[in-house]
Amino acid sequence: MSELRKDIISGRWVIIASERSKRPDDFRPAREPVKEPAPGFCPFCEGNESKTPPEIASLRKRGTRPDHPGWRVRTVPNKFPALNRGLPPERHDEGLFQWMDGVGVHEVVIETPDHSQELPDLPIGHLGEVLGMYKARVISIEEEYQYKYVHVFKNKGREAGASLSHPHSQIVATPIIPKKINEELYGCERLHRQFGECVVCRIIREETQKKERLVHRNDHFCVITPFAPRFPFEMRVYPLRHSPWYSKITKTEIRSLAKTIKRTLGKLRDTLSDPPYNFYIHQAPNPNLPHEAWANLEESCHWHMEIIPVLTRVAGFEWGTGFYINPVAPETAAGFLRSR
Amino acid sequence: MSELRKDIISGRWVIIASERSKRPDDFRPAREPVKEPAPGFCPFCEGNESKTPPEIASLRKRGTRPDHPGWRVRTVPNKFPALNRGLPPERHDEGLFQWMDGVGVHEVVIETPDHSQELPDLPIGHLGEVLGMYKARVISIEEEYQYKYVHVFKNKGREAGASLSHPHSQIVATPIIPKKINEELYGCERLHRQFGECVVCRIIREETQKKERLVHRNDHFCVITPFAPRFPFEMRVYPLRHSPWYSKITKTEIRSLAKTIKRTLGKLRDTLSDPPYNFYIHQAPNPNLPHEAWANLEESCHWHMEIIPVLTRVAGFEWGTGFYINPVAPETAAGFLRSR
Repeated sequence: MSELRKDIISGRWVIIASERSKRPDDFRPAREPVKEPAPGFCPFCEGNESKTPPEIASLRKRGTRPDHPGWRVRTVPNKFPALNRGLPPERHDEGLFQWMDGVGVHEVVIETPDHSQELPDLPIGHLGEVLGMYKARVISIEEEYQYKYVHVFKNKGREAGASLSHPHSQIVATPIIPKKINEELYGCERLHRQFGECVVCRIIREETQKKERLVHRNDHFCVITPFAPRFPFEMRVYPLRHSPWYSKITKTEIRSLAKTIKRTLGKLRDTLSDPPYNFYIHQAPNPNLPHEAWANLEESCHWHMEIIPVLTRVAGFEWGTGFYINPVAPETAAGFLRSR
Repeated sequence: MSELRKDIISGRWVIIASERSKRPDDFRPAREPVKEPAPGFCPFCEGNESKTPPEIASLRKRGTRPDHPGWRVRTVPNKFPALNRGLPPERHDEGLFQWMDGVGVHEVVIETPDHSQELPDLPIGHLGEVLGMYKARVISIEEEYQYKYVHVFKNKGREAGASLSHPHSQIVATPIIPKKINEELYGCERLHRQFGECVVCRIIREETQKKERLVHRNDHFCVITPFAPRFPFEMRVYPLRHSPWYSKITKTEIRSLAKTIKRTLGKLRDTLSDPPYNFYIHQAPNPNLPHEAWANLEESCHWHMEIIPVLTRVAGFEWGTGFYINPVAPETAAGFLRSR
């Protein structure tokens, strides 16, 4: 019999239907092969800097010029932005209809000049520079208070929504705190009142003790498969130190996170035959905003990363209900990843 | 500049980023070709009735026997159910973890014995029988009060999550009212208090007057593209008569809905080159349950169908935030569908 499980923070139920699944091993051949477009011209490759909008920030060799070769990590505005920089937008409200101008930020972090070098291929130092770039961009964007929430994410592979195959991440800042973030913040506040401590700190403590859903841990981070995951092999990367904002990550933690990500994404690639995936950071809203809405945001919110391999399809059941059917129990997924 | 729009019922914001899109026409060649598996043995085809679990209900020629040829519409249990019938499940609650047995219903409605006959190919009478089967199954399942919500949906095409290509829909009943339904019910109640009438009745009135997002209307139904759609060419089919439950649909309305669906899905197929799609019904929870949680469920909830063509991919931005980036404005989509 399958099992219904509740995610304690969001209140979302999932159906763990292991009988519908094959063994985890079978996800490998079952998945459709990734068909990346034929390698042609790539605007993100070294030497093609003039084909992107002018760079916003880069980590590059001493003496090289912006928008010229010599960079290791490079941030540019998205050429087809979902949101555009601007003044705080006016909110229109006419009966049934509410809208505002699409004010925000949409940037691309090109992770490496080398088209074929994926995140787990990067040396720890270089991967740390990518993570440091995220931090620098978040801090810079949050200086403007109209950008209420900064979302850092990566789509890898066409099936995961990437339109270009050159390794890159994206940063979108929105003039509204997103629904999912609000739900998480309120859930964490409620549970902080209930438990008298940060719920994520408690999850980390219990999961690293129990170990059945623990994939990996080092001095500063742990990787677990959550109790009620939406997707097979969904993972959370939690910093062991409580902190609501990614921007407060230390140099030591960045190095440790780079090691954690290299290992985790490498394992995903090796054991599940290089699946497409998404990852994103969940954190507290712009710290430069007044946070009256949350009584104890600093104590209750714990930033983290979520990694979602694309192995199944979301369909009419999920779209209609918000329930998810997951054919692989997180204990099975964690055990599988630990054993390889 | 793009526009942020709020769905008044769910509170979900979407980004209408028309500049990111090509013209609606371009969705045709842009979409990857649907690769259905090579036609082989199909357990849903006429003559193969013994390959499914025994049928629960069917509409068939007089004198033919259950689980034998002669049927037009046939409902069977899902062979790999996400949930299984059983007694009301016990809810376990241990600190961080809440779970229960996967008790529920999972049925498959085989819409036609003919493998190649899609919904828009069916005669109105036959399509009405499919819709009548939905109604009969919902009524039957709702007799058992542990099935709190009955979800009727269809996945068409592999990219929309269909594992078998033979035309079929699914019915899943859950022992919990799904999160999205709860959100919709609370949103509708709140807006009923605010407007003094059902918000969907008001949407229907305003949209059929304005016409910019109206795709079609007849005596009993209208089809609109919602003001804040998550996906390009997302549509809502609303009954003009206020009713919270699909099970209260009349014979006349079923015939009218069959015509509406034939026309709408036919247009989708013809103008967007046969895209994969999902549709589902949203309605009030099992009417045989006490509904103390909602003060005025009957007045505020208005059942309807939602149709989602699969033309874009959901990625790290959407998964992380709950925001959606939609490259086609609903006014453009409705105009396009009206003009063909």
